[in-house]
Amino acid sequence: MTGLATAAPDAGGDSPLALVCGGGSLPLAVADHVARRGRRVILFPLIGAAAPDGFAGREHHWLRIGQVGRFLKVARAEGCRDLVFIGSLVRPSVWSVRPDWRTVLALPRAFAAYRGGDDHLLSRVGAWIEEYGFRLLGAHEVAPEILMPEGQLGRVSPSDAAREDIMLGLDYLRATGRFDIGQAVVVADKHIVAVEAAEGTDEMLKRVAGMRASGRLRTAPGKGVLVKAVKPDQDRRFDLPSIGPRTVEGVASAGLGGIAVTAGAAVVAEPEPLVVAADRAGIFVIGVAS
Amino acid sequence: MTGLATAAPDAGGDSPLALVCGGGSLPLAVADHVARRGRRVILFPLIGAAAPDGFAGREHHWLRIGQVGRFLKVARAEGCRDLVFIGSLVRPSVWSVRPDWRTVLALPRAFAAYRGGDDHLLSRVGAWIEEYGFRLLGAHEVAPEILMPEGQLGRVSPSDAAREDIMLGLDYLRATGRFDIGQAVVVADKHIVAVEAAEGTDEMLKRVAGMRASGRLRTAPGKGVLVKAVKPDQDRRFDLPSIGPRTVEGVASAGLGGIAVTAGAAVVAEPEPLVVAADRAGIFVIGVAS
Repeated sequence: MTGLATAAPDAGGDSPLALVCGGGSLPLAVADHVARRGRRVILFPLIGAAAPDGFAGREHHWLRIGQVGRFLKVARAEGCRDLVFIGSLVRPSVWSVRPDWRTVLALPRAFAAYRGGDDHLLSRVGAWIEEYGFRLLGAHEVAPEILMPEGQLGRVSPSDAAREDIMLGLDYLRATGRFDIGQAVVVADKHIVAVEAAEGTDEMLKRVAGMRASGRLRTAPGKGVLVKAVKPDQDRRFDLPSIGPRTVEGVASAGLGGIAVTAGAAVVAEPEPLVVAADRAGIFVIGVAS
Repeated sequence: MTGLATAAPDAGGDSPLALVCGGGSLPLAVADHVARRGRRVILFPLIGAAAPDGFAGREHHWLRIGQVGRFLKVARAEGCRDLVFIGSLVRPSVWSVRPDWRTVLALPRAFAAYRGGDDHLLSRVGAWIEEYGFRLLGAHEVAPEILMPEGQLGRVSPSDAAREDIMLGLDYLRATGRFDIGQAVVVADKHIVAVEAAEGTDEMLKRVAGMRASGRLRTAPGKGVLVKAVKPDQDRRFDLPSIGPRTVEGVASAGLGGIAVTAGAAVVAEPEPLVVAADRAGIFVIGVAS
């Protein structure tokens, strides 16, 4: 404990929300949902992760990864007490991080956090920031609209064979959740054909498309499911599994029939374009109990 | 049961061995080991899987995948009672298989065998052939020289960090063995960075090389381990995990430090060139208890 933890967590509704933004469309969607509730949002886009456009016209302060001191100073000056991390973030190289003085003081624990899986890294960083008096929340706590509902989105329904594949995929993800790796598999004909680890869902889907093109994967087009699930003991304040229109494109290119994600524990980026794309491609999208 | 099972299994030492050959260098290595023991070997290379050269000067009969009737007829005429499947075989398309009449009679069970994982398919085919009076053996039973020994091959030893990564990889493979998928992972810095499913080990290693090139994987070069293990309840007569010189090349290209495989339950194709390649690349190769 540092002795610097002066601001006790509170309901936070009156304080502006500090939203640290990685890549993708989700950070701005969360910002809009929170603003619609009448809460002020201060954006902290991360250089190298968040796209440069989209922040003009919104209150924001760019951060380098590693600038913990700058974040604490600016967020306090803005009156923030609650903090949300949202958006994609490629695991940074130790050497590309440019720590400021606050981070340098904590380097031994930063290095300890660095070894191990992604959850390990994020939960260490989260615990560390909470010691400075901030409350770390999940994006779904401030913007529940982003969560995947239970049941079908769009017009296409999964077949019975697809439902069997979904069950097998969920079973696999339950068995491997404790290893802190990817949260997705592709299952076709009761056969697990791809497992996501560090490469990410989009890369895994490209691999499935490649296996189909090369003849290595020969299930009929339109069969097979992308299954994404929350890890059993995942800290849901970080990195809930997410899907968006690009996921639908990847699933269609891989010749699969649909997408199943854990309802209430996965995030849908841009739901309207996702449903339009899914219906057009004949892809089902379903939220299932985990 | 078909009533056609006339030849009871016996010790088989006097009968020639029927060796059904997929791709890679292993089938001819097994044939040589068996021949060196003084047993006659009849090769049955599979069209589309076995390389066309290498069989001249050896007793052989080409087979199409699906020609069960032809196999039974020729193998019986040669006096074979024991059968070994060896070499790589990409899961064939249902539509590319050209069944002969014996296979057609059994089509309902052939289709049942086809749904599900690779072990499922192979064990069904194996049980089926045994009903015709053949004894199905593992390649390691007729040629134990091909098995990976316990301990280090070559001059390079794993570091303590590499040993931790090996333990984590084996733990993962134990947890997922029941799913009948790939038998390999890449672990670096106590983090599972790639999991093999239908794509095969070489493709997984290319993915790791790609993640390193794109900056997605940023562990130091020379760290990280390819871990291959036998599945807990695998029928060892089929498809034991294997490594060869090409595996060493893939591991070196992926910037990893070494290879760990389950001793006594994995196959080493071309051990001499493998050790030369590993020593030259500074890669360790170790056989570990599973």
